[in-house]
Amino acid sequence: MNTRRLVADVGGTNVRFAIADMDGRLDRVNKFPVTNFPTFPDALSAYRSDAGGLKDINACTVAAAGPVDDDVVKLTNNDWIVDRAQLSTMLDGVPVALVNDLEAVAAALPHLTSEDLTTLGAPAPGRPERRTMLAVNVGTGFGAASAILRDGCWYTCPSEAGHMTLGYTTFGRLDATDAVPANASVESVLSGRGLAQLHERVAGNRHTAHAQRTSSVFAEASRDDDAARTVKLFTAILGRVAGDLALATCAWGGVYFSGSVATAWSAVADISQFRAEFTRKGPMHARMQQVPAAVIRRENAALFGLAMIPLPR
Amino acid sequence: MNTRRLVADVGGTNVRFAIADMDGRLDRVNKFPVTNFPTFPDALSAYRSDAGGLKDINACTVAAAGPVDDDVVKLTNNDWIVDRAQLSTMLDGVPVALVNDLEAVAAALPHLTSEDLTTLGAPAPGRPERRTMLAVNVGTGFGAASAILRDGCWYTCPSEAGHMTLGYTTFGRLDATDAVPANASVESVLSGRGLAQLHERVAGNRHTAHAQRTSSVFAEASRDDDAARTVKLFTAILGRVAGDLALATCAWGGVYFSGSVATAWSAVADISQFRAEFTRKGPMHARMQQVPAAVIRRENAALFGLAMIPLPR
Repeated sequence: MNTRRLVADVGGTNVRFAIADMDGRLDRVNKFPVTNFPTFPDALSAYRSDAGGLKDINACTVAAAGPVDDDVVKLTNNDWIVDRAQLSTMLDGVPVALVNDLEAVAAALPHLTSEDLTTLGAPAPGRPERRTMLAVNVGTGFGAASAILRDGCWYTCPSEAGHMTLGYTTFGRLDATDAVPANASVESVLSGRGLAQLHERVAGNRHTAHAQRTSSVFAEASRDDDAARTVKLFTAILGRVAGDLALATCAWGGVYFSGSVATAWSAVADISQFRAEFTRKGPMHARMQQVPAAVIRRENAALFGLAMIPLPR
Repeated sequence: MNTRRLVADVGGTNVRFAIADMDGRLDRVNKFPVTNFPTFPDALSAYRSDAGGLKDINACTVAAAGPVDDDVVKLTNNDWIVDRAQLSTMLDGVPVALVNDLEAVAAALPHLTSEDLTTLGAPAPGRPERRTMLAVNVGTGFGAASAILRDGCWYTCPSEAGHMTLGYTTFGRLDATDAVPANASVESVLSGRGLAQLHERVAGNRHTAHAQRTSSVFAEASRDDDAARTVKLFTAILGRVAGDLALATCAWGGVYFSGSVATAWSAVADISQFRAEFTRKGPMHARMQQVPAAVIRRENAALFGLAMIPLPR
């Protein structure tokens, strides 16, 4: 059977659709702002009209930015609801799998090649990898999900890692205790807004309006001491948290970053500082030194991952 | 086929063997000190002699206290090695599955009844549970593993959560910054030795030798201010970490404690304080309030879990 799958990535701001073949090649990729439609089915209907009716698909996998509860996702950042059973009915009963948005990225990980990745220091990721891998997104928010191999099949495990308590440490001579509030969540520091707030606290009354934009903090890091200090602190915290999440999931196959903030960060960060924090895990130091880290540079990795998700048996 | 399975739980101090039927009933349970035998195969041979030759088994599942690498576990706290292929050869080629020790406990979780559990506050765990569950052991060390349902089958995911960086927070008015060193690992506080050291730092020069034993700290908590303060701090930290691990794994089906320290702690702890820290997760507070927590009181839960582990297909 020549499987053609509808894939949809439903985010807080945009919804992306495509038709994928069994190798994950994407056709008829389209993107709509969520605010253009009152509901997800309305957006799907619009895509269906554009895409020629969707008569030729025989499966569907959807990622949505929120926790999956009983086959329903209430989106975290808008009013949309994605309901697996409703969606299957709309699509003439084809099998539908519904996952959280980071699970879609995690599902892509086993199928990425070295061209899809920018490695962050040594070691390079093994391709194809057979060990558990972790997808970490740092953008508007912070998310993570793992991909694990069982019985020859890659499964994904979601998380709500962005809401974990960060806890502050001194990070050596970078005194994070001034810059990170007690009981801060991971996401309240490791996200676009988090970085801007971190920079505000680091720069204090030297803080200028232009640096409030995340991209400016990274752009200024080479010429402004405050921005450099903020990036150093962000690197330390990201390294520590990414290492902790690798330990929480035994992600010996590597940690793979996506998202606008992680991508911009990786271009200016001191990767050896990142690796030092990532691996500073006492008796697990030697093991952590063997865990690769990389940034995903493949476009539409989540849609590609959705094409790779196993359908319910 | 009437499946009878050899199950073995290989720890740092003791190795436990039993024969399990398909319902997890355990027969010929036996325990040996690890120091009695130079290698794991020697211990297995001794058990085999005692247990009548093991001619009647057709599968074997083994848990070992250490990370599983390529079907081999090098025990963390002794010189033993457990090698899946070697073990299968010793057992005339029967299928063998090898997991980490906490995965064995996690594998038991979906099959425990309310009689096997002591609930820690509301809500009570749903039985049978269909959502991801997390096993957390606090004893000599700290360990965790999750059980996830995929395609009608329960799988386990290991972790090295004990080696995550704890990070300190103020825990309200309990000033943990004095009692918990920066860059401390989870296990360096949440374990038998960790509790003793925490108490030493809390009690300072009022610290008495008898309270160095973990059990004494719990026993003294009702009549000694320092011990009460230590237990309060331990409760806050355990609640925070257990909540974080639930978020890291989406363990909406609950967190299940085992181990001597967790069991002794639960008998004297302020459970409402535990629940307050467990659920203090900002936007995830309401969701965390729905996550049950319990202590496993069933004997040999790990051996029972080993009887429930799916064999490789």
